[in-house]
Amino acid sequence: MNLILLFPAEVSGDHVTLTDHRAEHVRTVLRSKSGDQLRVGLLNGPLGTATVETVARGSVSLRLHLHGSVPQPCPTALILALPRPIMLRRVLAQATALGVERIFLINANRVEKSFFQASLLRDEAYQAALIQGLEQAMDTRLPAVSIHQRFRPFMEDVLPAYLADYPVRLLAHPTASAPLPEVAPLPLAERAILAIGPEGGWVDFELDRFTACGFRPFTLGPRILRVDSAVPALLAQLELLRHLPPTAG
Amino acid sequence: MNLILLFPAEVSGDHVTLTDHRAEHVRTVLRSKSGDQLRVGLLNGPLGTATVETVARGSVSLRLHLHGSVPQPCPTALILALPRPIMLRRVLAQATALGVERIFLINANRVEKSFFQASLLRDEAYQAALIQGLEQAMDTRLPAVSIHQRFRPFMEDVLPAYLADYPVRLLAHPTASAPLPEVAPLPLAERAILAIGPEGGWVDFELDRFTACGFRPFTLGPRILRVDSAVPALLAQLELLRHLPPTAG
Repeated sequence: MNLILLFPAEVSGDHVTLTDHRAEHVRTVLRSKSGDQLRVGLLNGPLGTATVETVARGSVSLRLHLHGSVPQPCPTALILALPRPIMLRRVLAQATALGVERIFLINANRVEKSFFQASLLRDEAYQAALIQGLEQAMDTRLPAVSIHQRFRPFMEDVLPAYLADYPVRLLAHPTASAPLPEVAPLPLAERAILAIGPEGGWVDFELDRFTACGFRPFTLGPRILRVDSAVPALLAQLELLRHLPPTAG
Repeated sequence: MNLILLFPAEVSGDHVTLTDHRAEHVRTVLRSKSGDQLRVGLLNGPLGTATVETVARGSVSLRLHLHGSVPQPCPTALILALPRPIMLRRVLAQATALGVERIFLINANRVEKSFFQASLLRDEAYQAALIQGLEQAMDTRLPAVSIHQRFRPFMEDVLPAYLADYPVRLLAHPTASAPLPEVAPLPLAERAILAIGPEGGWVDFELDRFTACGFRPFTLGPRILRVDSAVPALLAQLELLRHLPPTAG
């Protein structure tokens, strides 16, 4: 937890009293005492600092100075074939820490149907993983997350509304022949949407539907990565393309 | 497990009989039967296929056709400040799946001393994590792993012998000002060594010692990543730099 994230509803003026795991973190990990300064952020709002006023078992009160900037998300969206529950929590935290602005969790032929029964998907329980990603990366902006249990309705009724927002559309596909720098503009300056398939990859029908929507398939090479490596690897590669010098094309 | 990895000592001619978790995987996950083909690889040797001869509870016998290529490692080495045990297993598998040829696990000021007591470090127990990475990425080449419990002796007595091997030397450091494309040759064509620090980063003394050895500090940006995101993110970025078009510099 590199940042203590505060929720608007719990803040009263420039004060907040924490009574949950954040209070425990301040007391036992940071070992803060009255007068210490902490890094804080307001959910979907500015970063700032807080002065510790009192520390007690189970309760920490802070005076807030929320005058920092509001972190900007990366102009990147992620379409992710729903991974198995044990991976989902980790991957949502990773993608959030890497700053994606939007995550579509979708079905695909090689996604096991039972994955959609994950308790993490009920009542937005996955929000805890997003919060963890924000606390890790010192960000305050929650990505928008949506869940799409049927592939065709997602491709036909949902995705088209977003295509104009994301002029660069990329699809990771193990058997594609082009590496990423051949299918992305160099340097990458526009908003991008990246689709990552299930273990075993996309099937031909899915590949066809994505390419019909302007997605360009690329390969990471012969190595097959687990989703908790593929997601940070690919998001970091896109981010790197945004920082190439102008001569890179 | 995308590849069944075989050990030279268990192979007899072109036959092997599996009796461990690999046999269980063939029987219950792949649901293979006599005559089926499987992807296999010989540790530190060639890839190939195997024909299933018999499948029984707890025992699977295979006839081997090990005529594929020997996978090449990435010409990249990793220096990693020893992470906490729960992360170490995962990160070793990730780095192996991403193909690094050498991993130095080192001490640093902000590494907790207790991490070196991890059971994973005793009797090379970490080999299981490396094998898991190879099975995932369909590789056969084990990276060389070494453990260095004292920072100065590593920097003074161990690292110098490797410097000529790695003309490109990079140090991830949160407070550095240059992004990776400013400190690495574009495209990257030479062998590279990458140092990733502990949670909290390198201290000034460590930074000075690395820069004295020709390591150039760079930043991933303001986001602080957990080590299980930072390792795949940075290794994937290096790999991407190797695939930029020649005009990129």
